[in-house]
Parts: sequence; C-alpha cells; structure tokens
Amino acid sequence: MITIFRYAPDSGCAESHDGQSLVGLPEDGVSVWVDLQAPTLEEAEILSRVFGFHPLAIEDCWHEPQHPKVDDYGAYLFLVVHGVREEIESDAFDTHELNIFLGRNYLVTFHTYQSRSVDALIANLHRHPHLMARGMDFMLHQILDRVIDNYFPKLEIIEEKIDEIEGAVLTDARPELLTRIFDLRRTVAHLRRVAIQEREVLVQMSRGDFVMVSEKAQVYFKDIYDHLFRIVEVADNQRETLSVLVQVYVSMVSNQLNHTMRVLTVIATLMLPLTVITGIYGMNFEFMPELHWRFGYPLILVLMAVVGGGMLLYFRRRNWL
Amino acid sequence: MITIFRYAPDSGCAESHDGQSLVGLPEDGVSVWVDLQAPTLEEAEILSRVFGFHPLAIEDCWHEPQHPKVDDYGAYLFLVVHGVREEIESDAFDTHELNIFLGRNYLVTFHTYQSRSVDALIANLHRHPHLMARGMDFMLHQILDRVIDNYFPKLEIIEEKIDEIEGAVLTDARPELLTRIFDLRRTVAHLRRVAIQEREVLVQMSRGDFVMVSEKAQVYFKDIYDHLFRIVEVADNQRETLSVLVQVYVSMVSNQLNHTMRVLTVIATLMLPLTVITGIYGMNFEFMPELHWRFGYPLILVLMAVVGGGMLLYFRRRNWL
Amino acid sequence: MITIFRYAPDSGCAESHDGQSLVGLPEDGVSVWVDLQAPTLEEAEILSRVFGFHPLAIEDCWHEPQHPKVDDYGAYLFLVVHGVREEIESDAFDTHELNIFLGRNYLVTFHTYQSRSVDALIANLHRHPHLMARGMDFMLHQILDRVIDNYFPKLEIIEEKIDEIEGAVLTDARPELLTRIFDLRRTVAHLRRVAIQEREVLVQMSRGDFVMVSEKAQVYFKDIYDHLFRIVEVADNQRETLSVLVQVYVSMVSNQLNHTMRVLTVIATLMLPLTVITGIYGMNFEFMPELHWRFGYPLILVLMAVVGGGMLLYFRRRNWL
Amino acid sequence: MITIFRYAPDSGCAESHDGQSLVGLPEDGVSVWVDLQAPTLEEAEILSRVFGFHPLAIEDCWHEPQHPKVDDYGAYLFLVVHGVREEIESDAFDTHELNIFLGRNYLVTFHTYQSRSVDALIANLHRHPHLMARGMDFMLHQILDRVIDNYFPKLEIIEEKIDEIEGAVLTDARPELLTRIFDLRRTVAHLRRVAIQEREVLVQMSRGDFVMVSEKAQVYFKDIYDHLFRIVEVADNQRETLSVLVQVYVSMVSNQLNHTMRVLTVIATLMLPLTVITGIYGMNFEFMPELHWRFGYPLILVLMAVVGGGMLLYFRRRNWL
Amino acid sequence: MITIFRYAPDSGCAESHDGQSLVGLPEDGVSVWVDLQAPTLEEAEILSRVFGFHPLAIEDCWHEPQHPKVDDYGAYLFLVVHGVREEIESDAFDTHELNIFLGRNYLVTFHTYQSRSVDALIANLHRHPHLMARGMDFMLHQILDRVIDNYFPKLEIIEEKIDEIEGAVLTDARPELLTRIFDLRRTVAHLRRVAIQEREVLVQMSRGDFVMVSEKAQVYFKDIYDHLFRIVEVADNQRETLSVLVQVYVSMVSNQLNHTMRVLTVIATLMLPLTVITGIYGMNFEFMPELHWRFGYPLILVLMAVVGGGMLLYFRRRNWL
Repeated sequence: MITIFRYAPDSGCAESHDGQSLVGLPEDGVSVWVDLQAPTLEEAEILSRVFGFHPLAIEDCWHEPQHPKVDDYGAYLFLVVHGVREEIESDAFDTHELNIFLGRNYLVTFHTYQSRSVDALIANLHRHPHLMARGMDFMLHQILDRVIDNYFPKLEIIEEKIDEIEGAVLTDARPELLTRIFDLRRTVAHLRRVAIQEREVLVQMSRGDFVMVSEKAQVYFKDIYDHLFRIVEVADNQRETLSVLVQVYVSMVSNQLNHTMRVLTVIATLMLPLTVITGIYGMNFEFMPELHWRFGYPLILVLMAVVGGGMLLYFRRRNWL
Repeated sequence: MITIFRYAPDSGCAESHDGQSLVGLPEDGVSVWVDLQAPTLEEAEILSRVFGFHPLAIEDCWHEPQHPKVDDYGAYLFLVVHGVREEIESDAFDTHELNIFLGRNYLVTFHTYQSRSVDALIANLHRHPHLMARGMDFMLHQILDRVIDNYFPKLEIIEEKIDEIEGAVLTDARPELLTRIFDLRRTVAHLRRVAIQEREVLVQMSRGDFVMVSEKAQVYFKDIYDHLFRIVEVADNQRETLSVLVQVYVSMVSNQLNHTMRVLTVIATLMLPLTVITGIYGMNFEFMPELHWRFGYPLILVLMAVVGGGMLLYFRRRNWL
Repeated sequence: MITIFRYAPDSGCAESHDGQSLVGLPEDGVSVWVDLQAPTLEEAEILSRVFGFHPLAIEDCWHEPQHPKVDDYGAYLFLVVHGVREEIESDAFDTHELNIFLGRNYLVTFHTYQSRSVDALIANLHRHPHLMARGMDFMLHQILDRVIDNYFPKLEIIEEKIDEIEGAVLTDARPELLTRIFDLRRTVAHLRRVAIQEREVLVQMSRGDFVMVSEKAQVYFKDIYDHLFRIVEVADNQRETLSVLVQVYVSMVSNQLNHTMRVLTVIATLMLPLTVITGIYGMNFEFMPELHWRFGYPLILVLMAVVGGGMLLYFRRRNWL
Repeated sequence: MITIFRYAPDSGCAESHDGQSLVGLPEDGVSVWVDLQAPTLEEAEILSRVFGFHPLAIEDCWHEPQHPKVDDYGAYLFLVVHGVREEIESDAFDTHELNIFLGRNYLVTFHTYQSRSVDALIANLHRHPHLMARGMDFMLHQILDRVIDNYFPKLEIIEEKIDEIEGAVLTDARPELLTRIFDLRRTVAHLRRVAIQEREVLVQMSRGDFVMVSEKAQVYFKDIYDHLFRIVEVADNQRETLSVLVQVYVSMVSNQLNHTMRVLTVIATLMLPLTVITGIYGMNFEFMPELHWRFGYPLILVLMAVVGGGMLLYFRRRNWL
Repeated sequence: MITIFRYAPDSGCAESHDGQSLVGLPEDGVSVWVDLQAPTLEEAEILSRVFGFHPLAIEDCWHEPQHPKVDDYGAYLFLVVHGVREEIESDAFDTHELNIFLGRNYLVTFHTYQSRSVDALIANLHRHPHLMARGMDFMLHQILDRVIDNYFPKLEIIEEKIDEIEGAVLTDARPELLTRIFDLRRTVAHLRRVAIQEREVLVQMSRGDFVMVSEKAQVYFKDIYDHLFRIVEVADNQRETLSVLVQVYVSMVSNQLNHTMRVLTVIATLMLPLTVITGIYGMNFEFMPELHWRFGYPLILVLMAVVGGGMLLYFRRRNWL
C-alpha cells in the first residue's frame, strides 16, 4: 500500500494513494512524505523512478535482515531501524524493519509489516496538517521517537519475567528454569545489540554529521539518543542479573545435592549400627550369656533406641536435619 | 517550593520565595540562583518564562530516571547528577535526581526530593552571602562537591557488609548469603555506573569544554573528578571482592559436600564389614566349630572391635575424621 | 592453469590461455584479467615478468596460510581473502585462499584450489563480455561479493547443528556432545576471525583509502561490508549460544547426578529400616514373646509394608521419585 | 620535620632545618629542595606562604588516600606516587603516599611516613652535593626511580608465596589455601592498579607534556616507565596464575570427592554381596541341604573370599583403588 | 666475543675481531656491523666510546629482562627483541634477549647467549659480502626475520602437546593433565605477550616512523609484522583451546563421579532388597509356614534371582550400566 502526503505552504497537506501522481522530486518549498507498506513491486518502483535512489539501498529495503544503520548517499540519507512487534506474549524480541530515506524536502518510509509508529504519525498528520511544515528531519524524529519508545514495554515485560524466575530459582531449581533463563538472555542480547547499533545511528544524527538534519533537530535526536542510552543500560543490567541467576541456579542444585547427601548419610548412620547390633545377637554361638537373660531382649531394644536417639540428637546439633 | 537568591555587588544577597518577582534573565553584574524543590507546575513555569530553557531539557527535569549527563545548549549547560538518599539502612543505592542549569550569571536547580547538598549551600549562603560573588560555576562546584562526598558513607556501609558476609561465608555457607551477595553486587554495580557517568561529566567540566566554566573553576571540578575516580576504583574493588565471595561460597558448599561424603564413607566402611562378620556367625550350618568354642562369642566381639578400631585409626591417619 | 581476459572497447572481450601472449602492462583503454588457478611455476612467472609485483606479495601467494588483508603497493593493491570450501558435510570451516592484485586497468587472481566465485565470474563474462568495461574495481566486487555470500550456507549448517545439539543436551547429556560443542565452537571462532579481518579489508575498500577504487565502486564494497557485519554478528550469537550450551550440559550432568543420588537415597532409606526389623526378629534371645505369637510373622510383614509404604508416600510428596 | 637543601653554583649545597629561612621562591640560578616529613601544620605552612601552591593541591597532601596522578598547575607540577612500606612480612601491598611539587628550580616533597627513597637521596646529596646542579627534574627522577625499584622485592615475595601455595594445592586442597589465594589476589590487584596509574604518570613525564621536564630528562623517565611496564606485566602474570590456582583448587576438591566416592563404592560393592550370602545361610528353612554338608561352612567361606577377591581384582584393573 | 664487519663499496667487506680497530663512527659511504656476543666489559666499552650510545640504552643491554621495544634516540634506534632458545624439549618458552642499535650506516647487536639468527647472517655475509650494500635496515630485517621465524617450530610443538593432552583428557582425566595444561597455558601466554610487543615494534618499523628505515625496507618489516600477526592469532587459538580443555577436564571428572555414583546405586539397589528377603527368612518366629515347605528354600532363591535380574534389566534399559 502506498500513502503520499504532499505539503505546500499555500495549499496545505494533501493525502493520496496513487503512486503515479508523483512524477519527480518535489519542487522547492514543497515537501512530500511517501509511505510504502508491504508495497507491490509496481508501487515500489517509485523509489527508483521518482527519487532515483541507489540500487543497493533499494535492495536493502527488500532484503531482511539488515542491521540498524545510516548510510549517507549525498543527496539523501538511508536509515534502517528496527521496530518492536506489538504481540508481547512471547519471550523473543521480534522486530520488523523500517527503511527510511531522508532527503532535503522529502521523506520515504518502506516497511513490510504494519508499523505503529508510522500509523501514529499519519493519524497525527490528519489532526495537525501543518506538522509537515516543521521539516522532514522533524517528521523523521517523530517516527524514530515512537519506534524507540515502544522498546520500553518490552523491557518491562522482560523485567517481570526475570523477577518471576528469580523467585522460582530460590524455591525450586528445576532444569526448565535454566532453559527459560537462556531464552530470556538471548532476547536481552538481541534487544541490546539492536539498541547499541541504533544508538550509534542517533549519535551521528545528533552530531551534525549530515546536512539534511538541521541544527534545531539535532537536539531532538540527542533526546532519542538518551532514551537508547538508558535502554542499553537497562539491558546491561538484565544481562548481568540473568548471569547471576544461572549462578544461583547452579548453586541451588548443588545445595539440593548437599541436602540429599545429608539425608542419606543420616539414614545410613542411624541404621547401619543398629544392623550390627541385631547381627550380633543373631549369631548362633553356643555360649552367649545375654541370650539367656530374662530381660536381654528389651534391654537390647532400649540400647538400640538409645544409640539411634543419641545419633539423631547429635545430627540435630550439627544442623544436619 | 521555590527559593531565589539574587546577588548584586552593591545590594548584596537577597532571598525570596516568589517566582513572580523574576521577569527576565538577570542583568549584567547581577547573579541569580533559583532552587526548585518539588515545584508545582506553576512554579516550574519559570524555567520557560524567565530563562527560556529548551523544552527537552525541561521535560528531562520532570521525567525520571535520567542518566547523569551534561548537555551544552549554547547559552547554558544542563546537568543531571544523582544524589544518594539519606536513609542508609537498606542495601540498595537509592538516588534522587538533581537537574541543574548553569548560565553565565544564573544557576537553576530542580529536584523532586529534598537535597542535602542544596540545603547545605543555602545554609552556607545565609552565613556567607558574598559566596555568590565567586561566580555561578563556583556555586555549582559547591553543590556537586557535596553530592559526590555523600557517596563515601554509602561505600563504607557496603564495605562493612562485605566484611560481614566474608566472615559468614567461611564459617557457614548458607543459600541466604548468596542472595545477599547478589543484592550487594547489584548495589555496587548501580553506584559504579552512576559514578562513571558523572566522572565523564566532570572530565568535560574540568577540561574547559564549556565557556560558562572559568579556568579558575576547572581545577575545582578536577578535584571532584579525582573523588569520583576514587569512588569508581573502590567500587571496582568491591565488585571483584563480591565475585570472589561467590567463588568462596561455591567452594565452601563443595567442601561441605566433601565432608558429608567422608562421614558417610567412614560409617559405611566401619559398619558393613562388621555386618558381614555377624552374618557369618548367624549362618545355620550344622558343622561350624567356632560356634561351640567356649570363648567364641567374646573372641568375635574382640575381633569386631579390632577391625572397627583399626579402620578408625586408618581413617584418622588419612585425616578423614 | 592460466586464463586471460583482455578487453578493449572496440575489439570486445578476448579469452586466452597462453601466458606468453602477455608481454607488458596493458596499454591505456585496455583492461586485462589474469586468473591463475594452481599455476605451474612457469605460468606464475607472469606475476613478476609482466606485472612486476613485489617479491613479498608473490611469496604470499605461494605460502599459505595468510590472514585476510589488503596491502597498498602504490601502483596496485594486494588482497588476500578466504573462500569457503564447497564440501559442507564436515564441522570445520575449511577455507582456501584467494590472492588478488588490483591495478588501475588490470586484475590478477591467484588461487591453489578451484574457486566457485572466480568460475562464476568467468561464466558471467562469457554471457556478458561488456562487464569488463565497468572497471576492474567492479570486477573485484563481483568476486568478493560471491566469496562472502558463500559464507551464509555454512552459517546455516552451523545453526542447524547447534539446534540439534541443543535438543540432545536437554534430553541426554553425554560426553560426546561436549566434544561436538567444542568442535563447533572452534569452527565458529575460525569463521568469525576470518570475517572480522575481511570486514577490516572492506572498511578500507569502501572508505576511499585507495585510488584504484572509484567512488562509485565504494558503495558496492560498503554493501559487502554490511554482509560481513551481519556474518560477524551471527557468529557472535552462535558463540554465545555454544557457551550457554556448555553451561547447560554441565548443569544437566549435575542434575543427573542429583537424580541418581535421590534414587540411591530412596533405596537405602526404604531398605535399611526393613533390614533392622528383620534383624531384630532374627536375634536368638530366649525370651522374645513376639516370636511365639500366632500372628507375629504376618504382623511384622504388615509392619514392614506400612513402614516401606509410608516412606514411599513421603518421598512422593517431596518429589523425590 | 622539615629539611631544606639550597644549591647555588658558587656557594654549593647548604642544608637547613629551619622553614622560616625561606622567604620566597628561589631566585634564578639557585635551586631548592624542601622535604616535609610528617610536618607540623606550622612547618607545612611553607607550601602556601613561600611557594603559593594551590589550596586543592595542599589539601591533597594532607588527605590520604589519593590515587597516583600528575596535575599541571602551570608554574609547577603536582605529583602523587605510592611508595611501598618496608615491612614485608604481611601479604598486603601497604603503601604510603609521596606528594611532590616540581617547579622550574625547586622541588618540594611531602610525606607522612618516612620514605626510603627520600632518605637515600638525602644521603646521596651529602656525598655528592653537586647532584642538584643537574636540575630539579633529575632530582625527581632519582626519587621516582627508587620508589619504583622498591616494588620489585614485593613482587618477588608474592611470587614465592604463589609458588608455595601452588605446591600446597596439589598435595592437599584445604579451604585455608583458598583464603590465602584470595588475599594474594587482592594484593596483586592493588599493586597492579597503583603501577598502572603511575605508568600513566610516567608516560606524560617522558612524552614532553610538561615544560619543567627537560628533553634530556625525558629519556630517564622513559626508563622508569619501562620498569613500570614490566611490573604491570609481572602482576598480570601473577593474577592469571592465581586465577588458575583457584581452578586447580576447585578441581582438586572435586578429585578428592571422586576418590572418596570410589572408596565408598568399593566398600559397599565388596561387602553388600557378602552380606547377602551370609543372609542366605542364616535363613531358617527346614530343608536346606547345604546346611548339613560336612564342609558347607568352609566352602561358603571360600566362596565369599573368591567373590570378594574377584571384585577387588576387578576394581584394581579399573584403577579404582 | 666481538665481531666487526666493515663494508666499503670499493674495498668490499672486511671481518675483524679487534674492537680497538674502531675509533669513531664510520665515515659516509662506509657501513659497519658490530656484533657483541657475551662481551667482556672491555669489549662492550665500544658502545660508549665509539658509538656514544645513551647510558640508559647500554644499561638495558646488560640488564635482563627487558620487554621487546623500540626507542628512538634521534641518531639511532634501540631495539630489544626476544629470540627463542634452541632447546625445544621443555614446555616453557625460553627466550634470550637481542639488543640492537640501528644507525644510518651502522648496526650494533648485543646478546648474552648465542643467537642463531645472528650466526646465520654472519654465515650469509661470508657467502655474499655485498649484502651489506643493501643498507643497515635491510641487515636488521635479515636478523628479525629469522628471530621471528624461529617461533613457528615452538608453536608447532605446543600444538602437538595440546593434541596429545586433548586425547588424554577424553580417555582418562587425571590431575597430572591439569598441571600440564596450566604449564602450557603459561607458555602460550608468555609467547603471545612477547609476540604482541614485537608486533607493536614492527608496526612502527613498517609505518615510516623512523628515518633510519627507508621506504623500501618498510615493506619487508610489514612482512615480518604479518608473521607476528599470525603467531598471535595461533597463540590466541591455543589459549582458547587450553581453556576449553580445562572445561572438558572438569566435565570428564564430573562424568566419572556420575558413573561411580551409578555403579554404587546399582549395587546398593540390587543387594539391599535381597538382604531384606534373607533377613525375613532368618527371623525366628515360631509360626512361619514357608520355612516348612519342601521347596521353600529353592523358591526363595528363585525369587531373589528374579528380583535381582529384573532390576538389572531395568537398569540396562535406563542406560545405567
């Protein structure tokens, strides 16, 4: 689907869905935003026919996965950023790619999946058509700001899951937990890697490396950079916590082993001496005076109870039970 | 609450709590310090109305958490630093944010929670009103110096707790200790991260990157930098010690397991041969001469004592008991 | 074997296999590609006789292994890149070396093993002889692009093997798996190291460090750089996953030990008390009233069943069985 | 205590202990070295009164701990270095601080504890008064050279202790060793950190960053830098060795556990079958022909010896004993 | 021993062993190589008397150990490199130091131990006296090239030993292997550290930092750099492999423990129930009908065989035997 917003100071903002209406780069004073969502090959033809973008950049639009980056092609910038998918039940950090071309007076967005950030900007434009007058770099900021802000709910979900696992590890260390920890670790590593690369992109945007980004807009990109800085920091924290959880898990398993061993030792230590005692009086010697005592049997039972009870007490003292 | 100090060489230092009294940037030769503590929206309006600060910087004041940073907005600097909260019983490194604007002849501080550093500076101003004559950069130094110095008591508390855990791990390695170690590690990591970011801020302040910071003041910021350098170093040390403690814990648990196993082995090794001996003389063979010996029974008891005692001796020699 | 392509705008592209036909550097307007596949010493003599390459570069062609690099010799570049061998059954990342000289209007490729990338370019030249008109840097891009793209199938095979091992570790952690994990880790480390070095080469090619690489071609080398960036990222991921698998393996072994210990404990705990009971009634005391009861024997059997069953129930409750 | 050396080419070197004799910076052609050892406040007043050093630098002299550093105050350098304390029995790397001011023609040293390096230089001056003619930078080199050379004996003591522990770990891995390893590791980490910071100082001294350091003297500071480079390297080595020792310790404990388990298994495996055999012939069945054999009892004893001996042999073959 | 080669275009190359024959720096057009092998103090005096080298550099010649480095003294370079000792049986990487002074038209080598690289160059000079005409930088290259090439056999020996240990760890993990692994790791770490420092030296030599190194010679030093690059890479690999071997060792020990535990469990699980059965029929109850059955005894033996055999089968199914 193709959506075109054309803004001229005198005629205002006009929306259209006909790619053929565009025949060349917008004239001076006019600004154009073209959004291509899961475009047909025919619709996407606009990239080369109207804007004359470099074949490699167009190829990058079609071929996923690309890592987040910004390429300077002289007359325009080509950006790739990763938006987080809305469905948030899964443990994974699923992203879709948003390819953006930023020219002096045009902006082209290309994405295979529906983008909440682009949709929000379209809705915003419907309400405030004069938004486009603030410049294409500002429009880009609007999109990027939302893309990055959508990372935070994901971070919170991960945080909750980590808390949940933390409680579970300390009460019952089962192998399933380990698998869940490693899954989360992979998610965090993915998110962190994407955020670091996008932070790198935002550094360049806010540093004045590119002529398409006005000095006024740089401050705004610096603001997104700060958000990404924080995202990376939180992800670093989570990664550290997950590493610690693995150590706690291993330690808990080791503690359980220790506990099992103690129970075994206690049982064996209580029962084996009693077995020896019963063994002694089970021997068939002819001359064993105790066997003929009137209270030999109850005496031995008492002895066994005393031995067993004494050892039990001893173990309790040593905190083995 | 809003507090305004206005200093002019001739009229001295005047304190006021009325935000409306300020109508524009202070004229040359006059210097102003505005402190906003948990301000109402109305009071905070001064930021844009009088000083014309950038909307993004004002937004950063309201939105926590921000990482420590310094942004150069041309006519003024915007700093975020983290003060440590006073309550020191908890294991966590709880911070509140202090947002500071430094202009050529004005200083604006914005904080939601009460700040000991700001309070101390106010008290100081009451005693020495001419303090403001030394320049706004020097006033800023006064605040930052106290903010950073307040980190040291926290470091000492952490140090004590580490020492406490260290003793406990070597005597009795219980799982609760592991949880406490990991909690402390998180605290240290947090403190270290904040200190590193603030060290970065202070490097810029002491390097002459900004025109608001006079050359004379740079030496003072270098001094705070040295304190932060030391804080990071101590935190690095503590982090290392905590990692080592985890290793010691794991090793102690393993030693306990080893000890339990030895006890089990000793018991089994002492008792099982005795069981076999009693078993032999419990057999019902018709022709077993020993059974009819006059002293067969006591002889066997002596044999069992010798076997058991001999093994005990052997184990003592091998240090198994 | 030597293959020479000579292109002149008027006469088109001519193929020859006679090294003696070349007597000097190609004149202006003419471009030449010489491919040396497992050349004889005589054929390779062309490197010094015709092109006058530096003895050290020629020596590097003959002596494997060389790490991927680009050396600037002024009039020409000398590149070493590693192509992946086609046979893909093995776990190893077997590479062959491709040595390339890039001059202003000539390209020389030297390789001991057959190269799929070179063969593909030859086939391409047969179909589109005018390809050579686009410049030697473009020809080089064609080769490098295919060399690097051939890494991806290898990455996918590694990915599959990792998935396979992941499943196996969780169901049955046997020592053979550990050996396989370490073999894969070595493969990934090798691939990653090669890719990082080649990425370094491509950075230089796309940055305009060399006069032989036109500005137009730089964008294409940047594209290969992006592929290598992604390869390194995937390899980083795989390395991380393999480290995690080692941890999972160790943890699974520890779990198995735990499980074995529990079984042992359960058996010992069930049987040892029963042994003590039978031992008691195997004693030969004269006065043991139970022995003369009519239902003493079945009563004791019932007692033993109750004791054993009770303990079984208890163990089930504690999840030990 | 205050010691003043005043050198003038014509009058030579004069020693005094009266701080009041100095009234201002030494005139041209005269050079002065002031050493303050554990000075009274009155003696230390010379720092501000005569030399006019910056209050922050003077504060640093009084407040320990400071990290090694060099601060450029324009007219003079302020250095902090750490000397190693002489007592060498303890495991710790105890240092005292040496604060040094280096001006064009004066040198001020300030230290709370007695410094062997300073004492040695004083002794040297008594013998060769013209040493001061070589310049203040050369005097500083004399002190720093000795400070750093005093690190080597400490390194050797650590080396010896590591060797000692290495031997002990392999013969008997007791928990005390672990504590000693971690103590040494802390010592090495401390020494390494100090050496790295001082290396940083020496880099600046030998690079010509400061005008007080003549080009001729830079080579000498480079020489001290080389020593520090070596110290850091040795410390790195020791740190690595200590990490390895922890691994060896853990592995030895695990081996001991293994060995204990084998002994237990062997005992249980030898004794339990014998118990079953004796149990069989302890049964009270009416019809058990073996019981009535003439040689039943010795036959069974032989059988038990064969079973036990056979298993023993088997275990020896498997290297379990 | 002192060896002097003096080369003049007209008179050719003259060898001498008399240090007194040299009275000053060689005149223009003449070049001199002085080799000092384990020189007497008198012979070494040539360093200061004839060449006037800096006292610190001369001191470095005498004092080992020095780390590999290159110092620029203006008129000459001072290099320290480490040659590997010939005896190759030991596990250690034993090096001797080679100190080299490179001037515009002179080269001085100083070494305590015999150097194979220097000997080879002397032999070469005997055969090709005109080698010296190519310049002192080229002579230096000849020496360094051989010094570095001598590292490769050492690397191969380490590789073989690693392979050997790898096989041994997987078949029988004994503590001696761990000691050998750690010894090898130390060797590899030493070699790697030396190679990295020498690589740093070669980077400077090949980058044109020094006027004594002609542009033509830089390519040759770049070639040695490539060799060192490869050496470091191989050493990195070996280090990684050795770390993995430690993990494999620990894992194999853990597997052995697991195996031992299983055997113990199987024995206990087989024997304890049989003990209970024999215990039951060893009880002395008056009324136990089974005891009076004609085939009670064989029936019980069969029951015991069935119970034992059934459990054996079950264990085989679970792969416990």
